[in-house]
Amino acid sequence: MASFTNRRQLTIEWGQCDPAGIVFNSRFFEMFDVSTWTLFEAALGVKAHELAKTFGIVGILLVDARANFLKPAKFGDVIEIASRVSEFHRSSFEIEHHVSINGELAVEGEETRVWAARDKTNPEKIGGIAIPADVIARLAVG
Amino acid sequence: MASFTNRRQLTIEWGQCDPAGIVFNSRFFEMFDVSTWTLFEAALGVKAHELAKTFGIVGILLVDARANFLKPAKFGDVIEIASRVSEFHRSSFEIEHHVSINGELAVEGEETRVWAARDKTNPEKIGGIAIPADVIARLAVG
Amino acid sequence: MASFTNRRQLTIEWGQCDPAGIVFNSRFFEMFDVSTWTLFEAALGVKAHELAKTFGIVGILLVDARANFLKPAKFGDVIEIASRVSEFHRSSFEIEHHVSINGELAVEGEETRVWAARDKTNPEKIGGIAIPADVIARLAVG
Amino acid sequence: MASFTNRRQLTIEWGQCDPAGIVFNSRFFEMFDVSTWTLFEAALGVKAHELAKTFGIVGILLVDARANFLKPAKFGDVIEIASRVSEFHRSSFEIEHHVSINGELAVEGEETRVWAARDKTNPEKIGGIAIPADVIARLAVG
Repeated sequence: MASFTNRRQLTIEWGQCDPAGIVFNSRFFEMFDVSTWTLFEAALGVKAHELAKTFGIVGILLVDARANFLKPAKFGDVIEIASRVSEFHRSSFEIEHHVSINGELAVEGEETRVWAARDKTNPEKIGGIAIPADVIARLAVG
Repeated sequence: MASFTNRRQLTIEWGQCDPAGIVFNSRFFEMFDVSTWTLFEAALGVKAHELAKTFGIVGILLVDARANFLKPAKFGDVIEIASRVSEFHRSSFEIEHHVSINGELAVEGEETRVWAARDKTNPEKIGGIAIPADVIARLAVG
Repeated sequence: MASFTNRRQLTIEWGQCDPAGIVFNSRFFEMFDVSTWTLFEAALGVKAHELAKTFGIVGILLVDARANFLKPAKFGDVIEIASRVSEFHRSSFEIEHHVSINGELAVEGEETRVWAARDKTNPEKIGGIAIPADVIARLAVG
Repeated sequence: MASFTNRRQLTIEWGQCDPAGIVFNSRFFEMFDVSTWTLFEAALGVKAHELAKTFGIVGILLVDARANFLKPAKFGDVIEIASRVSEFHRSSFEIEHHVSINGELAVEGEETRVWAARDKTNPEKIGGIAIPADVIARLAVG
């Protein structure tokens, strides 16, 4: 699928690295979360913290996260994270995060998220609702 | 001041350490936060997540945090954190955290927190209110 | 496969939770890392920070991490993480982490790790080596 | 003292905030650490991860960290961190970090760090050495 791709450049921080001198795995999941918010902001033109209010949802809930570590990232490395929605389902979608260092793929991340709202008759209940066609259109265009 | 002291033993985790192989400074502030909740739970007999509701406050807001790093803590080190309220003011108090490794003081931490509630006439406004005498009594007894 | 299972109980901390009041996803990957070290320590009788030296390896390198979030964990929740090696390959293995709250499965985590050592002729190079039969035996016994 | 000041703009991330919807305190200490590295990089023209090698030191060791929280920072807030060395001693120095939101001071941070090297006769021993005049000159110029 052609899809809107957002790229961020980051410099690896001292505090993100472990005693082996490389980024500790959980830090990549922090980065992926920010990359997803940034992707939506860039594609939809809505600030991350206004996404829920703008679309009448509680958020884009993470239900699955995965990372495949191919090459280590070290303190001072400049990484690029390229993120895009790789697949849309009715109320959920897959986001792909490709982390590269000097053009070489270092980490492949993937998240599954749900476009979630409160149930109209029972606000205690939160569940997936259909993703608006407009949102899909903006994220799908390459 | 004689005061109620709570002690916790922790083993330093790989992911808490930086490329120098020692605990990254921000991790101690995470530990101090937990130690404060644990101290209050132990002294007051109220679960940390029920503290606000039980006392009709919004929480014990952190307004100042400090740490003095005397000796590094390494992956696998067993540390003890001894925490106590060292001073009470009307609506704020000082908490002292002493981190030791094998009986030697490694880090001295201090937090200033406020016993905070919503203003009765303007719930948007949050401010310090007098700490209940009973709370002081339980935390002051050594 | 019958396998050695290690269980840890943890109370969810304030600082592990996000504005939705639930554990932020990356925190589970921190917990899984600790659970893996703890599992090996329990099964092999070797302290986590002495594992590398004891077995002449550089470590048990994480090459893949996954989590499936079924139910949220909130501040104050007591969780149990049950961890075991679910599969052994020649130099790599799969670790399964089941997080439950009040007996209900909340998060399923999985890690793929490599039993890694420096190349004898080129110490700059790190790669997987055969996992000792003794290590497998201790982790495989239920 | 007139001194070289480095400014960074950051947008507060979801994962940096706690259930109160504001930045969890330890996250500011992570930011201060990065701000210090960035300040040195900007003033000295040396990449953070090459600082130790360039100057023959083991690093700029943190011995004391403090933060005074005046106003909360929320998800989506754009903050500016202005950092400068406020005072030089023979082998240690004070760094001031001022975090502001919309021009209003939100957090005041301070770090004490040591310009540290290995002892020439006993490499196991690490201690402060005199900060080079050139380093002071570059960081002192406003």
